Amino acid sequence: MDRCDVGRIQTGSFRWCLAKEQLKNSSTQSPWNWCLRGNIENPIGAAQMPLGVAGPLRVNGVHADGVFYVPLATTEGALVRSYERGMAALTRAGGVTTRIHVDENRVAPVFCFDNVSDAYDFARCLQEDFETIRAEAESTTHHGKLLRLECHPVGREVIVSFCYSTADAHGMNMIVKATDRACKWIIDHSKARRVYVFSGFSSEKRASGSLLAGGKGKKVTAGALLPKRIVKSYLHTTPGQLFDMWHHTVLGHMQANAIGYNGHYANGLAAIFIACGQDVANIANSAVGVTNLEVTEAGDLYASVTLPSLTVATVGGGTGLGTSRECLEMLGCAGSGHAAKFAEIVAATLLAGELSMGGAIASEEFVEAHETYGRNRPED
Amino acid sequence: MDRCDVGRIQTGSFRWCLAKEQLKNSSTQSPWNWCLRGNIENPIGAAQMPLGVAGPLRVNGVHADGVFYVPLATTEGALVRSYERGMAALTRAGGVTTRIHVDENRVAPVFCFDNVSDAYDFARCLQEDFETIRAEAESTTHHGKLLRLECHPVGREVIVSFCYSTADAHGMNMIVKATDRACKWIIDHSKARRVYVFSGFSSEKRASGSLLAGGKGKKVTAGALLPKRIVKSYLHTTPGQLFDMWHHTVLGHMQANAIGYNGHYANGLAAIFIACGQDVANIANSAVGVTNLEVTEAGDLYASVTLPSLTVATVGGGTGLGTSRECLEMLGCAGSGHAAKFAEIVAATLLAGELSMGGAIASEEFVEAHETYGRNRPED
Amino acid sequence: MDRCDVGRIQTGSFRWCLAKEQLKNSSTQSPWNWCLRGNIENPIGAAQMPLGVAGPLRVNGVHADGVFYVPLATTEGALVRSYERGMAALTRAGGVTTRIHVDENRVAPVFCFDNVSDAYDFARCLQEDFETIRAEAESTTHHGKLLRLECHPVGREVIVSFCYSTADAHGMNMIVKATDRACKWIIDHSKARRVYVFSGFSSEKRASGSLLAGGKGKKVTAGALLPKRIVKSYLHTTPGQLFDMWHHTVLGHMQANAIGYNGHYANGLAAIFIACGQDVANIANSAVGVTNLEVTEAGDLYASVTLPSLTVATVGGGTGLGTSRECLEMLGCAGSGHAAKFAEIVAATLLAGELSMGGAIASEEFVEAHETYGRNRPED
Amino acid sequence: MDRCDVGRIQTGSFRWCLAKEQLKNSSTQSPWNWCLRGNIENPIGAAQMPLGVAGPLRVNGVHADGVFYVPLATTEGALVRSYERGMAALTRAGGVTTRIHVDENRVAPVFCFDNVSDAYDFARCLQEDFETIRAEAESTTHHGKLLRLECHPVGREVIVSFCYSTADAHGMNMIVKATDRACKWIIDHSKARRVYVFSGFSSEKRASGSLLAGGKGKKVTAGALLPKRIVKSYLHTTPGQLFDMWHHTVLGHMQANAIGYNGHYANGLAAIFIACGQDVANIANSAVGVTNLEVTEAGDLYASVTLPSLTVATVGGGTGLGTSRECLEMLGCAGSGHAAKFAEIVAATLLAGELSMGGAIASEEFVEAHETYGRNRPED
Repeated sequence: MDRCDVGRIQTGSFRWCLAKEQLKNSSTQSPWNWCLRGNIENPIGAAQMPLGVAGPLRVNGVHADGVFYVPLATTEGALVRSYERGMAALTRAGGVTTRIHVDENRVAPVFCFDNVSDAYDFARCLQEDFETIRAEAESTTHHGKLLRLECHPVGREVIVSFCYSTADAHGMNMIVKATDRACKWIIDHSKARRVYVFSGFSSEKRASGSLLAGGKGKKVTAGALLPKRIVKSYLHTTPGQLFDMWHHTVLGHMQANAIGYNGHYANGLAAIFIACGQDVANIANSAVGVTNLEVTEAGDLYASVTLPSLTVATVGGGTGLGTSRECLEMLGCAGSGHAAKFAEIVAATLLAGELSMGGAIASEEFVEAHETYGRNRPED
Repeated sequence: MDRCDVGRIQTGSFRWCLAKEQLKNSSTQSPWNWCLRGNIENPIGAAQMPLGVAGPLRVNGVHADGVFYVPLATTEGALVRSYERGMAALTRAGGVTTRIHVDENRVAPVFCFDNVSDAYDFARCLQEDFETIRAEAESTTHHGKLLRLECHPVGREVIVSFCYSTADAHGMNMIVKATDRACKWIIDHSKARRVYVFSGFSSEKRASGSLLAGGKGKKVTAGALLPKRIVKSYLHTTPGQLFDMWHHTVLGHMQANAIGYNGHYANGLAAIFIACGQDVANIANSAVGVTNLEVTEAGDLYASVTLPSLTVATVGGGTGLGTSRECLEMLGCAGSGHAAKFAEIVAATLLAGELSMGGAIASEEFVEAHETYGRNRPED
Repeated sequence: MDRCDVGRIQTGSFRWCLAKEQLKNSSTQSPWNWCLRGNIENPIGAAQMPLGVAGPLRVNGVHADGVFYVPLATTEGALVRSYERGMAALTRAGGVTTRIHVDENRVAPVFCFDNVSDAYDFARCLQEDFETIRAEAESTTHHGKLLRLECHPVGREVIVSFCYSTADAHGMNMIVKATDRACKWIIDHSKARRVYVFSGFSSEKRASGSLLAGGKGKKVTAGALLPKRIVKSYLHTTPGQLFDMWHHTVLGHMQANAIGYNGHYANGLAAIFIACGQDVANIANSAVGVTNLEVTEAGDLYASVTLPSLTVATVGGGTGLGTSRECLEMLGCAGSGHAAKFAEIVAATLLAGELSMGGAIASEEFVEAHETYGRNRPED
Repeated sequence: MDRCDVGRIQTGSFRWCLAKEQLKNSSTQSPWNWCLRGNIENPIGAAQMPLGVAGPLRVNGVHADGVFYVPLATTEGALVRSYERGMAALTRAGGVTTRIHVDENRVAPVFCFDNVSDAYDFARCLQEDFETIRAEAESTTHHGKLLRLECHPVGREVIVSFCYSTADAHGMNMIVKATDRACKWIIDHSKARRVYVFSGFSSEKRASGSLLAGGKGKKVTAGALLPKRIVKSYLHTTPGQLFDMWHHTVLGHMQANAIGYNGHYANGLAAIFIACGQDVANIANSAVGVTNLEVTEAGDLYASVTLPSLTVATVGGGTGLGTSRECLEMLGCAGSGHAAKFAEIVAATLLAGELSMGGAIASEEFVEAHETYGRNRPED
């Protein structure tokens, strides 16, 4: 696959060839032998990112039940240490309880009609054809199951959410293909003038308010009760101080017109997603959620995260590639049957991150911690 | 680097050690020699991700002026090809014009008062002390410059945005430290009862509506005029069809309560950020923006992206590490003085991605393209 | 009901008594004899607002089918004329087609649990008790029908939307009472520690993104096809120019982080709600929606409004009082069996307002129109 | 005032004339003599709404300093009583402190350019012409003062917020006219291809996230410290219970993707706006804000409201009409020089409403209160 030609032919520039020569002698030319077909085009090697591990993290979930060490790929100093601190507190407190409320993925085509009347009739009657539509959709896939259709009329068009179970795969290719097939049938059997297979409603790889209601990925909650002495010894603060921090920063979120509330979900998500071969762009939707802190009557802390759109997979995509597979194996999450387990571990990890970040703010140690573990350069 | 001890001591579990033994013989133990201190804790090696390159991309910016080949790390089949298609169309059309409107970063502490009256007095008079506050803040940093303060009163508290220039660094550690120093001075010289250095308002690593107004990173616009014949030959559609797609999917974004509008900024951002050693979690804020398509009177297409919170750096963080530095070098963006150039290239790349994705939807080739270039496994 | 005493006793101020004396001789002391009990406390008379009428408006709905003259109470000069202009255009074009997709009202209590596990079990099993819960709820009301329950888990709590049919009444008192009864049963038969009958989720009298999905009031669409010559003669612009206006102002809505898109729903809603004895505070939720404009292949205009949360009633509340009842009678909408009809007329009216405002902006006549019909004072 | 002709000519319908005959003998034909020209077209009389009064309310503002009785026009039983309860608690606690942080109104035209480069140049240089632009704008008005311009570039267009002081008037007509003039000058002296005087960004009569930052109307805060015994005796709950209610309902607001947080601002706003001749449609933007409750270290309650976009006037519009003027006089707010005072009273009133509603929810008396004071009909 001689990429140089492409570069030369189209631009006459030699910069790229030069770059490629450099790369040949560089660390990106690892000796490992990936089967890259299907994952990337114009490959020149592999990007590398420091990989650390944080733990132990006890998870008391339905699918994940045990103690885990979580691989985190990052270049942000103090991040692994920060998550690890939260994990230690949670594990010492007995662990994190996790539950998966919804486990779906969706594509939302939009059907266009001549007028609001036709759109209304379509939306009112679509369910009558559900079985046929499902048969059409599922004829293209072994793993995707069409669970239901939801209509959102807007003027003379109707957005239809096709909600699927995708087993352990991310499944976007799968369900787009299935939906495309179903749309063709619908177009042939309705007054719809045309259809766009994407309406923008599903919020794939985008943040949006509607994600809070779930449906794009797994809706997971993770919660833990932390006795005040554990909050004190691990997070150097009190449940009351942590809650005050929550209260004040909730106001900041409101003022910013944020979606939900969280400290830094994106940090943990990015680190795990890169390590474990997830589609990293799904951070955009997966980072939507709500962290809640409460002081119990006994003066302890109940902390939770709610992740309505956690998009993870253990088969397909990048999950089988080199270090990604190794990282998933570290968690016992490689391959079929493990996506729900992996989702619970991710949720528990994010809870750890929220606690540690919250503790650093409440105890005013944030700057100090980043001085200690952070960038060792004179300044950056 | 003996991680085993930590694992053993705290949990008695041997799983991690076992995992580590596996890793020793694996591809994560690359022979290259990173200086990891400051970038990660508990390091065990490097995560690897397939690295491709897309181009040529002509950029006519103030800082980036030339033809570029953009490194993209991804595991999503068809992604590199898709971006490259958009780049080819743009380059053939004469290139992408890019401009940086705002170049800042900010931290937004919140100051708490006894009542709304004290909060009001504080907000009204804070600017009087600006020079002193600036001196305090800048005493901790050589590169960070405090540009201004913005007050957002909420009841009896006042969120204060500290807006900085951070040169070519991401600069969060830098400006948090500076702000922390300034806050101490303010606490000593005001009626503020307490301060939290983070209020949640700045939306660091979170999506929020307020980001559209800029201030967290670079606000960049990128636009191009594409003659209809180029739209036809490269994107297999027409300006009118592309715009119809925009129109209908804007409604879907509204229905989803999305922030702004975009097709898949997160895809391009993730791929470049991983390749070039950026803080990948900043996808959450950087993916907020607005893609616009317009049909001109002559029937051609004007396409643009507006990225109000593009957070990129060419020094500090992960930018100097192994493959990251090589990738930045491929773009001529390694080291000081290149962050603005890099930002312009990123914006142009995202525009390419929007066009290609939009074209695939408008021409109904999306499914087919993913079949051809996508996952080669039986199904995923 | 001698209100003076209250004033004197508690404050010693005579201002209020003075004011009341003035009122005695003023227009607020109309001779009409309202039965005010149940509608207001501390009554001193009636506020008055100029009442105009706009029409004719042809509506081709399922419930409203005919030509209507719509009463509008306002003090904004040009408003009635503006709506009337849109109505004339729509009526001339054959009228407005209206459809009601959803007709519900809801209350959303929140149930608190000890941990995420209990919350999960509750959310998973609640539907099993639906019939019992419905019986409890409906035991308090003759008209309210509980249609379904929807669970939204957030950490260790679960928001439950109780969705009702409330016939022709607004029904908030009705369904809050019913829900309160049902909550008591649930508390007795679940692990819920406590319940708040309001969680804030239902967005009663507040704007919110989730309203776009409907459920708080009637979800109504209204649309019409306007030939380009009618657009020209009535709105002094072209379909293309109107659409360009839509396109550019959609970007402004995005930039403002608005919910949906509309020109000035609140104007029409306020004017009708005041005239017809609606709960005027429901403007806050009713004004959420999406106006869409499209140029057809023939070069004509298709215009629509989508109102997902239109809260109107024809019985109860202020609907039976004096001028309100007269105004409802003008529309043939007074009393039972007319709420859906009234909703369709309101939606058609708002569409008229959107067209007229849009036309004024597109044709640059906005300032001129307000000069002509607007405030006749030297300046205001 | 012969509306019949219009109706007859255009439709041949006699329904309207019939209705008008009815109206002639009805309460809408009050004997009072309004000067309606400039306020309404096609007038047929006056809509009437029950008018009550709530108080005493002590306000300790900069502009409003004293005890007030607030006129409230509503048909919602229990509303006046509810607000009065909150007022009594606040007054007993020493009153409400109010402050106005920003006092502006704005219009936000959008300028369109050929490419992002021209848009960039425009946005960068616009301030250089500020004095000229101001002179143009202010040439059309005696009262409006152009304070500054703010640019929001989006692709190849630039939204420009024209921020004005409008003295005691609402001032939309005034500032739209002024802005229109300024836009003409700008079009003549820039590369702008065209301008729309409204971009949708200013959020006039619409809810939007950007309103939280202020600029459309007055940004007002109102706060009060309520000792726990007053909370107990007036609101039948404790500061802690009130705060718990706040905490849980904040989560509901998040889940609903609401803007800010409030219990029922729209209720108080509608009642005052109707009574006092305000533009009632401005509820849509004025109801955006943040209510905050805090338990102090001493166990008392600090409550506040923040209203970033309170749009009120004491001259112009409907403020001089009949009962409206009387109501403003009751507050000592009629005519020039009183808009700021009026805004402070409104803010204090809304705080009272939030406390009373919050107390009813926290103490679980909500249903009971509406049973007692609410609708006296068998059911509605």
